[in-house]
Amino acid sequence: MASKDTPRSENIVFQQSHVSRDKRGQVMGQKGGFRGCTVWFTGLSGAGKTTVSMQLEQFLCSKGIPAYSLDGDNIRHGLNKDLGFAPADREENIRRIGEVAKLFADAGVVCLVSFISPYRKDRDSARQVHEKHGLPFVEVFVDTPLNVCEDRDVKGLYKKARQGIIKGFTGIDSPYEAPKDPEVVVKTADMTVRECMMEVIDHLKEKSIVPQSATEQVNELLVEPSKLEAAKAEADTLPKLNITKLDLQWVQVLSEGWATPLTGFMREKEFLQSQHFGTLLDSGLTNQSIPIVLPVSDEDKTKLADAKAIALVYEGKTYAIMRAPEFYEHRKEERCSRQWGTSNKGHPHIKMVMDAGDWLCGGDLEVLGRIQWNDGLDSYRLTPMELRKKFREMNADAVFAFQLRNPVHNGHALLMQDTRQKLIARGYKNPVLLLHPLGGWTKSDDVPLATRMQQHSAVLEEGVLDPKSTVVAIFPSPMMYAGPTEVQWHAKARMATGANFYIVGRDPAGMPHPEEKRDLYNHSHGREVLTMAPGLTQLEIVPFRVAAYNKKKGKMDFYDPQNHDDFDFISGTRMRRTAREGGSLPDGFMAPKAWKILQDYYQSLPKQS
Amino acid sequence: MASKDTPRSENIVFQQSHVSRDKRGQVMGQKGGFRGCTVWFTGLSGAGKTTVSMQLEQFLCSKGIPAYSLDGDNIRHGLNKDLGFAPADREENIRRIGEVAKLFADAGVVCLVSFISPYRKDRDSARQVHEKHGLPFVEVFVDTPLNVCEDRDVKGLYKKARQGIIKGFTGIDSPYEAPKDPEVVVKTADMTVRECMMEVIDHLKEKSIVPQSATEQVNELLVEPSKLEAAKAEADTLPKLNITKLDLQWVQVLSEGWATPLTGFMREKEFLQSQHFGTLLDSGLTNQSIPIVLPVSDEDKTKLADAKAIALVYEGKTYAIMRAPEFYEHRKEERCSRQWGTSNKGHPHIKMVMDAGDWLCGGDLEVLGRIQWNDGLDSYRLTPMELRKKFREMNADAVFAFQLRNPVHNGHALLMQDTRQKLIARGYKNPVLLLHPLGGWTKSDDVPLATRMQQHSAVLEEGVLDPKSTVVAIFPSPMMYAGPTEVQWHAKARMATGANFYIVGRDPAGMPHPEEKRDLYNHSHGREVLTMAPGLTQLEIVPFRVAAYNKKKGKMDFYDPQNHDDFDFISGTRMRRTAREGGSLPDGFMAPKAWKILQDYYQSLPKQS
Repeated sequence: MASKDTPRSENIVFQQSHVSRDKRGQVMGQKGGFRGCTVWFTGLSGAGKTTVSMQLEQFLCSKGIPAYSLDGDNIRHGLNKDLGFAPADREENIRRIGEVAKLFADAGVVCLVSFISPYRKDRDSARQVHEKHGLPFVEVFVDTPLNVCEDRDVKGLYKKARQGIIKGFTGIDSPYEAPKDPEVVVKTADMTVRECMMEVIDHLKEKSIVPQSATEQVNELLVEPSKLEAAKAEADTLPKLNITKLDLQWVQVLSEGWATPLTGFMREKEFLQSQHFGTLLDSGLTNQSIPIVLPVSDEDKTKLADAKAIALVYEGKTYAIMRAPEFYEHRKEERCSRQWGTSNKGHPHIKMVMDAGDWLCGGDLEVLGRIQWNDGLDSYRLTPMELRKKFREMNADAVFAFQLRNPVHNGHALLMQDTRQKLIARGYKNPVLLLHPLGGWTKSDDVPLATRMQQHSAVLEEGVLDPKSTVVAIFPSPMMYAGPTEVQWHAKARMATGANFYIVGRDPAGMPHPEEKRDLYNHSHGREVLTMAPGLTQLEIVPFRVAAYNKKKGKMDFYDPQNHDDFDFISGTRMRRTAREGGSLPDGFMAPKAWKILQDYYQSLPKQS
Repeated sequence: MASKDTPRSENIVFQQSHVSRDKRGQVMGQKGGFRGCTVWFTGLSGAGKTTVSMQLEQFLCSKGIPAYSLDGDNIRHGLNKDLGFAPADREENIRRIGEVAKLFADAGVVCLVSFISPYRKDRDSARQVHEKHGLPFVEVFVDTPLNVCEDRDVKGLYKKARQGIIKGFTGIDSPYEAPKDPEVVVKTADMTVRECMMEVIDHLKEKSIVPQSATEQVNELLVEPSKLEAAKAEADTLPKLNITKLDLQWVQVLSEGWATPLTGFMREKEFLQSQHFGTLLDSGLTNQSIPIVLPVSDEDKTKLADAKAIALVYEGKTYAIMRAPEFYEHRKEERCSRQWGTSNKGHPHIKMVMDAGDWLCGGDLEVLGRIQWNDGLDSYRLTPMELRKKFREMNADAVFAFQLRNPVHNGHALLMQDTRQKLIARGYKNPVLLLHPLGGWTKSDDVPLATRMQQHSAVLEEGVLDPKSTVVAIFPSPMMYAGPTEVQWHAKARMATGANFYIVGRDPAGMPHPEEKRDLYNHSHGREVLTMAPGLTQLEIVPFRVAAYNKKKGKMDFYDPQNHDDFDFISGTRMRRTAREGGSLPDGFMAPKAWKILQDYYQSLPKQS
């Protein structure tokens, strides 16, 4: 159509949405630009080309990087169904695949090609088609010995080739020309599928096709053991900053990778992203609803203003090095308002913020070994990496996380049992529960961690929860009592463990308003905000169902409004009062041993007036 | 590779990132699921297939919907370079294109195919390939009469065909078989390119491939003139809600589409998204940093609780119908904290919130005609659609918007002139300035709108800004003085006008803290947050450069710290005092007529003590 058909007045629309290659890459979900390329897997039949490329496709898609596989299934039965296996047809087969891959690469997609493609000349032609258009071409030689491929013989093709039923079979009676200078070589006989995939990803990272952050599922900030002595020696030479116990809890959270992809206490840019958008935006979108910041005093800031690195010290011990520190205003009223939806100093965590320094100090952390508290509970403080390992050892095919900061009663247990059953009904063979009490700072009238851990152990001992499919571990984060903002943090942090289901309750992370006679947050906002929150795609949110004591059934039961009178809602206040008075609650509310632990605890407290 | 090569312990990774078709669609940026399909344009050479499909590709990409075009350029010289134009080759050409399109559709991409594809049988085969795999196939007949195509003859091919130089040319000596039942027919001889594209988009919307919201670049909520009488008659029968002047300003903002894609005052879900993420998430991600809500009293809520629709009334006149109203808590402290980073009632807008009703009422609006204020300035209140039309009439190829609520001095003018020059240097032929003073509620000590408009007119009359490339219009929004949160709103709203550049200043939308001796917001946060804000991709942010009076040059100039002493920073306080005293500021600070208007205004104010 001639340009006269495009009136000038239409052009403004074009200007707004002009699609440059770079722009197109972005709108296809690729923060950081165009990533189109072709990854060409070549190797013998049965070498593992498709297995590796399939896993790579899933990896890329999970990172928001568009990827598509071309393989025998979708090419030989479609585009190339007119071609046989004679030499000329094989050449034309590969030629067409090279051209189609180029189109996908040009569209901004990572095109994964898995064909034997035995001839060097044909692969080189495909490479040239890409290079002519400035599109990266990554040749991956899946270097599996013939005897291994033949042993595998998944489709029985080698057997038929040996019997002469199939003619011209690559490796048997037709040559395979190994690449001379492939970008990547993977040896599936010696490496796991994942290791092979990581070799390819490492190359794609070098070419900036995969962002560095994409593989850091858990961004640990712990100094490697081999470098620990040197780091400690360096730390001794650095200016020191004394931090609080609360700060050290955050150092632990950061060091173990719960706040991946953060590389340390937030710099101002990250802080602003968290405050305004509840997310981090620089390495793909990540949920990060709460700021993780290090307050410092005016005096410390003046002293450390020019330092290139700082040693973080708690009670005389150096725990971490902070590199390239950046000082920025701790705008406390604004920070609290955005984080808690109030700046009322009667809120116990807000009070700590208001009492803290007037500056924030952001910077990259190198943590000098695991943070330990020596309270007899360190063995429960598993890092996300340790939890992942544990789940693998348990052959978990689903992990559902339950965050709590209170004793477990049988209503909770019912919910967890029910979730497990539902996951089994959905086809998971071995769903594992991560019972994950929060272990950092809590307000003074919460049940202390040690008591809670005893209580949880008793619940497992009595079989209310199945020890074989449950992992009890401590989540090292401090509690903020920040309602819908905090509940996102509780969910996000558990993603680092590989959890894929998260149970969320009524009014999570909430508390009463410090001054007014009402709860600080609307009871349903936590669940609603969590369900909508960007950056939590790995998790499926399992909504909390209200459980109460069913007097007819004599046990905890999901509340049924049709039979309201059958239910006895046992409030936290009533539970605490009863425990303090040494009384008992209905059978079936809590396992007896667990109840005894709570009674003992409440009775040990000084009498209230 | 056999499954024995995939140890069980690897599987958990798979579980987390299992890519179902639906999931893949999502990670490719398609909120709301998989959208892969093929749109097949068929028609004579010169019919306009590629022109329409290119515009459609740009449209889809600008909406974050992955799209890719297959046409002669990338197919005939690549995949199908082995094919000629003999009947069998033409058939094979179309067969391969159909197969490749299917692969793209399967990858979740909207594949746009533009080939003459003259034979019905070949097109039907392509359709079958798609339908067999459950992928939508949309045939678009670009129905342009042969004589029109021949008149256009962009490549001179018809001439050659008539001369017999080209043989077998479709329409001349080779048949074109028009589709019998195409999904869409577009007639490029009678319709603009955009109209043709919209026909296709309407069909893609029906198939849920394009979300309904995608085409609502400007979501006007004004009742169509033909339905106005009926709507007014209905409104008379509805329960009434008296709203304030501030509320009516928001009705105007919503009705004209400044807050696209909002369809009325926010429901709770939208409110929570705005509060927690600064965005709306339900129809693709849109920036929406500030809540647009309608507070109602407890009494009104009780009265209207069961209403299916409500008439919104201001000073006795009904302005709008609100459908399906939803009442939810107006959590004022929390709302203000999150919106302003403070809940201090000394802030003049926060005070209005605190004095407003305890409930919010969300619902879809139907506004009964344009909102007018009859203050002599209504002709400046151009809607986004009217501004778009104006920019088209001016042949604008770039629009840069300047938000202001203060008089224009020559420092501002310098910045706007400079921006225009920079855009011209970048290749834009006719960048237009949208000088866009805010016209809604402002605090009592700001210069009133009428005076500002006179002052702006004087600036243009004196030629400080070029009237030929400047549009002065009023932005109907109230002012919130909400710093970095509000500056996003100021930018986002201008996107509705088609603006593609936005100038942002130092400390935009800020003010002093109501109680403490400091500014409420950090001066650079507005610019920083705006630059990072999600959902503002249409806009390029032009950072403000500080301008001051250069005493040596005798005019406003960009500040150069190297020559600090040459500069005289004229504060707002000094300007106001000088104007009040009838004094004068250095020549070149402000156009004389414009300065006179300010003098007159300040001198008309009651004397301050």
